[in-house]
Amino acid sequence: MSLDGFIGGPDQSRDNPVGAGGLQLLQWQDSAEDADVAALNELMGPMGAFVMGRNMFGPVRGPWSGDWRGWWGDDPPYHAPVFVLTHHPHDPIEMAGDTTFYFVTDGFEAALERARDAAADKDVRITGGASTVRQAFAATAIDDIYLDIIPVALGRGETVFDGSPGVRFTQLDATHSSAYSHLHYRVGYGSA
Amino acid sequence: MSLDGFIGGPDQSRDNPVGAGGLQLLQWQDSAEDADVAALNELMGPMGAFVMGRNMFGPVRGPWSGDWRGWWGDDPPYHAPVFVLTHHPHDPIEMAGDTTFYFVTDGFEAALERARDAAADKDVRITGGASTVRQAFAATAIDDIYLDIIPVALGRGETVFDGSPGVRFTQLDATHSSAYSHLHYRVGYGSA
Repeated sequence: MSLDGFIGGPDQSRDNPVGAGGLQLLQWQDSAEDADVAALNELMGPMGAFVMGRNMFGPVRGPWSGDWRGWWGDDPPYHAPVFVLTHHPHDPIEMAGDTTFYFVTDGFEAALERARDAAADKDVRITGGASTVRQAFAATAIDDIYLDIIPVALGRGETVFDGSPGVRFTQLDATHSSAYSHLHYRVGYGSA
Repeated sequence: MSLDGFIGGPDQSRDNPVGAGGLQLLQWQDSAEDADVAALNELMGPMGAFVMGRNMFGPVRGPWSGDWRGWWGDDPPYHAPVFVLTHHPHDPIEMAGDTTFYFVTDGFEAALERARDAAADKDVRITGGASTVRQAFAATAIDDIYLDIIPVALGRGETVFDGSPGVRFTQLDATHSSAYSHLHYRVGYGSA
């Protein structure tokens, strides 16, 4: 997340998968410092299932066309079922490394329920993008959130916070390298 | 600053000096934990002079009326000259503890110049609010910035970042208590 609270830049496209200026938000993943490596391991840690927005899955808008299979090559870093929110039906896409993309057309809550079933006793990660995280907050479905603070200001972009006054955060952990800070919060809903 | 990058809530008024929900952003100043006390001491540390926006000085809009003397009582926590940006002339207001409010009607750069003169070899702090900090970024006048990260999301409010792509940040220091994180960045302008 940028200093001004954006997890992606504006105007996402095939050439700018994280939006204008957004790739700066991923540079920390190349760091070799302990705190950054630990945060990346946490981010990429094994999960039971994922929920993902269509714009995170790819730049295609409207009805599906071509053979888009995600940004991540043949072996995506998920290694679990990924439930992709879309208004347009699509057959599941089975990738290498146990990642399968399933396409869910009946909304966030339905995708979350399928992800929970698939994950069984493991955790479900809402992996993005911003709109999907906002829907997850609105559904009071987020138990905790990791924010990696990147020292850039984008001015505009995509925010994960829907501003619901009923959402409360409690810091669980904070670490930092020489360049980046990694914050972990418990999320609560309703009055404290 | 809130998790979503706001240093004040929307709709500032005499009843809501930091805007709707904004007082949550000041609660960390009551903490007795070492990291929070050190951050507050840094924030309140002695300065040569301050530049302040009119909305931070008070809720009065348009021509001055009444005898508003700031939010801070007879002995404000500045103990130095404070140059307040306004479109409406006002005589200086001398307070206890060596704080004097001067009112500057010819813009941010003029206020900064007067503050630098008054500060001599000491530092000038741009103390807020958000619009004044954005003007300071636009004037490439900010050398470093302290961000105290408060675990709330306001949804909307006032941001200090103008989004200028020429502004660069380098983390200098990061500390945290059990509840809050305190980030300190060097600010640069133009290409690295």
